[in-house]
Amino acid sequence: MANEKSEENNVFIGKKPVMNYVVACLTLFNAGGKEVVVKARGRAISTAVDTVELLRRAFIKNLVAKNIEIGTEELTDVEGQKRNVSIIEITVIKAESE
Amino acid sequence: MANEKSEENNVFIGKKPVMNYVVACLTLFNAGGKEVVVKARGRAISTAVDTVELLRRAFIKNLVAKNIEIGTEELTDVEGQKRNVSIIEITVIKAESE
Repeated sequence: MANEKSEENNVFIGKKPVMNYVVACLTLFNAGGKEVVVKARGRAISTAVDTVELLRRAFIKNLVAKNIEIGTEELTDVEGQKRNVSIIEITVIKAESE
Repeated sequence: MANEKSEENNVFIGKKPVMNYVVACLTLFNAGGKEVVVKARGRAISTAVDTVELLRRAFIKNLVAKNIEIGTEELTDVEGQKRNVSIIEITVIKAESE
């Protein structure tokens, strides 16, 4: 990916424990990432919010949700049936401490 | 409530089917509400996003999420144990048609 907003700073939320995703975010920040995008769809949306909140409470006090987008993705299931699933993308940054 | 941002335009998401909350939002808009705040915590956060997305796709094409806030609330459960729960507040409005 040669574009500015690299896909490398994404954390995709699945069904693992929240702490796994918190560690993934921490790793990206510690590697010098300026922002991390936490992405989830369907039931995992709650876990995405949990991840950002736990990350802020327990590890990065000055973490800020710079942008939160919601939307819909159309999925085709194994029977070829189309269904809509909600998505969320939370972009988090460390606020400047001045 | 005498303040400008009335509590009356809130829709609290629980465990009912998504369509119940979509109808609640529609009712508020049809009663002349300029904006509706969809609120949820914990696992219901996914349903809050589903509600907004279904409302937009099926009923109000020009619906816009004006503001999305996430946060943490401290709850005390029946055993007196404190635990943190994530919350979301999605403020939706009808975009001007121009």
